Amino acid sequence: MQSQPFSRWSRPAILAGVTVAAVLGVAGDLMAQALKDVQTSDTPLVLKAQGSFFVGGDKVDQTQAELGDLGPGGHITVNQMYVRYMVPQGGDGNPPVVMVHGATLTGKSWETTPDGRMGWDEYFVRRGHPVYVPDQVGRGRSGFNQAVFNNARAGSVPAASLPRWLRFSDEGVWPNFRIGPKPGQPYPDTQFPVSALDELSKQGVPDVSFGGIPTPTPTHKALSDLAAQLNGAVLMGHSQSGSFPLAAALLNPAAMKGLVLVEPGTCPANYTAEQIATLARMPILVVFGDYRDTPTGMPSLPTWQARFEACQALIGRIKEAGGQAQMLSPAEIGARGNSHMIMQDKNSLQVADLILKWIGERVSKPSAQKK
Amino acid sequence: MQSQPFSRWSRPAILAGVTVAAVLGVAGDLMAQALKDVQTSDTPLVLKAQGSFFVGGDKVDQTQAELGDLGPGGHITVNQMYVRYMVPQGGDGNPPVVMVHGATLTGKSWETTPDGRMGWDEYFVRRGHPVYVPDQVGRGRSGFNQAVFNNARAGSVPAASLPRWLRFSDEGVWPNFRIGPKPGQPYPDTQFPVSALDELSKQGVPDVSFGGIPTPTPTHKALSDLAAQLNGAVLMGHSQSGSFPLAAALLNPAAMKGLVLVEPGTCPANYTAEQIATLARMPILVVFGDYRDTPTGMPSLPTWQARFEACQALIGRIKEAGGQAQMLSPAEIGARGNSHMIMQDKNSLQVADLILKWIGERVSKPSAQKK
Repeated sequence: MQSQPFSRWSRPAILAGVTVAAVLGVAGDLMAQALKDVQTSDTPLVLKAQGSFFVGGDKVDQTQAELGDLGPGGHITVNQMYVRYMVPQGGDGNPPVVMVHGATLTGKSWETTPDGRMGWDEYFVRRGHPVYVPDQVGRGRSGFNQAVFNNARAGSVPAASLPRWLRFSDEGVWPNFRIGPKPGQPYPDTQFPVSALDELSKQGVPDVSFGGIPTPTPTHKALSDLAAQLNGAVLMGHSQSGSFPLAAALLNPAAMKGLVLVEPGTCPANYTAEQIATLARMPILVVFGDYRDTPTGMPSLPTWQARFEACQALIGRIKEAGGQAQMLSPAEIGARGNSHMIMQDKNSLQVADLILKWIGERVSKPSAQKK
Repeated sequence: MQSQPFSRWSRPAILAGVTVAAVLGVAGDLMAQALKDVQTSDTPLVLKAQGSFFVGGDKVDQTQAELGDLGPGGHITVNQMYVRYMVPQGGDGNPPVVMVHGATLTGKSWETTPDGRMGWDEYFVRRGHPVYVPDQVGRGRSGFNQAVFNNARAGSVPAASLPRWLRFSDEGVWPNFRIGPKPGQPYPDTQFPVSALDELSKQGVPDVSFGGIPTPTPTHKALSDLAAQLNGAVLMGHSQSGSFPLAAALLNPAAMKGLVLVEPGTCPANYTAEQIATLARMPILVVFGDYRDTPTGMPSLPTWQARFEACQALIGRIKEAGGQAQMLSPAEIGARGNSHMIMQDKNSLQVADLILKWIGERVSKPSAQKK
């Protein structure tokens, strides 16, 4: 087994976006101001099914004070994972794709872009894949465990022991999401729809992952269980959750049809040989945007180039073990200026086409790739 | 103008559910355990469009500590309202319906039911209405303002000043949502899918409405603005948000095509004559389930019967002012045992049919109802 190069997906093919044009007949101004700028396709979306459900969850017994002091104490569920899904009519044979969002964000990341274009959730459905979009445990519609905050309010635990709530300032997003070196200074060729940055800001929600949920995050197990319930799935993570597909795969490798790591915050360097051998059993794609070697404005964290290199190292280990992991960096094949929010970039559907092509070659028709 | 009675929607029509049968060809066991029990329709769902966007939001400047101490201080957006939408193919002329959830819940309330049946969101779309499902400001994908919690953690504000986070215990839900008088004792004819109560438990998220968001809730203005952006909409609230359509209507009555108050927690008694005259300009429907005159387990709050009677009084005032407000209580027309979560009850789609019939008569064809 050997990876095929991505180089044959030439620059003209990326920029022409033939597939994109086939499903999008869109028009709209460039300023994104919510509903009025949401674009609509020329062709209807035909779904076999859509809806939502939960995976996982733990019953805990809490006091009246822990529950906010209105009703009686008792049991609630925490650590469940909300999942919204769409299944295309006629797409039954295609691998389902699970899309997990990053830090301070929710599943909204994958929906309508900040400037009103089609999100990857709908695009992958239109390309025939059932799509499942969770909110990470501890965020969005998955909720979180509020007890410690009510206990601090009541004085029964010290406030200093509270977990932090993380949000990224708009000013911090510019360098960290690699839209530009400083606020208000976009890279000349940035693919991010800069006029819609205020809409990206609205996607932010407080993130209590740093102390407010169990370790490791229950999302790992929930993703693994979801893939099993789907009889196999492609797991796609982004940023904070970029490594989650790896973690889920190690819990239940048989349920993984493929892993896609989009701008992962981490590619672990400490996997054992046995773990690497497990990961070598499934196709893995890592996707990174441009301007990686720029300061993030967060000196305590590695640069994106350092993360990219850690992923290159992991890919190397997996390939040495006979696996078929590979890197996709659109910059190397002619598409410059992709940001950290690559699924929202102006060329987001062209990047999606590259991932869909990889799924088609590596996941949907696995027998064709073996020599 | 005079309200037509609901009595002609006879018991056989409700129980036969002809319209329901036309779009649902479902089978599944009664135990709800997430994905495996999600039911799928016989006929595809054909959407002109789907996606999500935000309404409203305020930019605030926060310190590094307030943002969780990872990145730099700066601006974030708070008080925005997330909205997911589906527009049916061919439904352009029909009034859009906005469905707002209740306390400790999110927009998930209106999606797939706990036992895996079709939610009102999809059902109203299949009946031709564009549907918009928000998360209230302060919850779910709308996020909340985390600064005060991080400040308490840092010691810069007293923990005692923190807003409470509310969740309802499973034990409290039994009497308060009128599933049964005590935990484990369902009313013999309850319409709630009792075997799926653990799935309802997973829908719970912490609710910071009591001190953690501005007063009045920014959701009022966001709903009013959303209705205006839609060039008119039917606003539907539930429980905590049951009165929100009234509040939104008073902010911008011209944008209201109709108001549906499902099991409202409040029907205000203190509206001025001018406000009543405004509400008399639009069709209003109030919907209540069964077993209202039972203890809620929350002695500090009014019973549901008291709330029902407050709504009857409000309806009376609006009718006196020449308006067409009316009460729909399925129990009075033969459908017994409906719970507070009426949109998730076993006969949820039959109740939906009653609301859709009202929309058809009072909103879609307003000229036909005038004498």
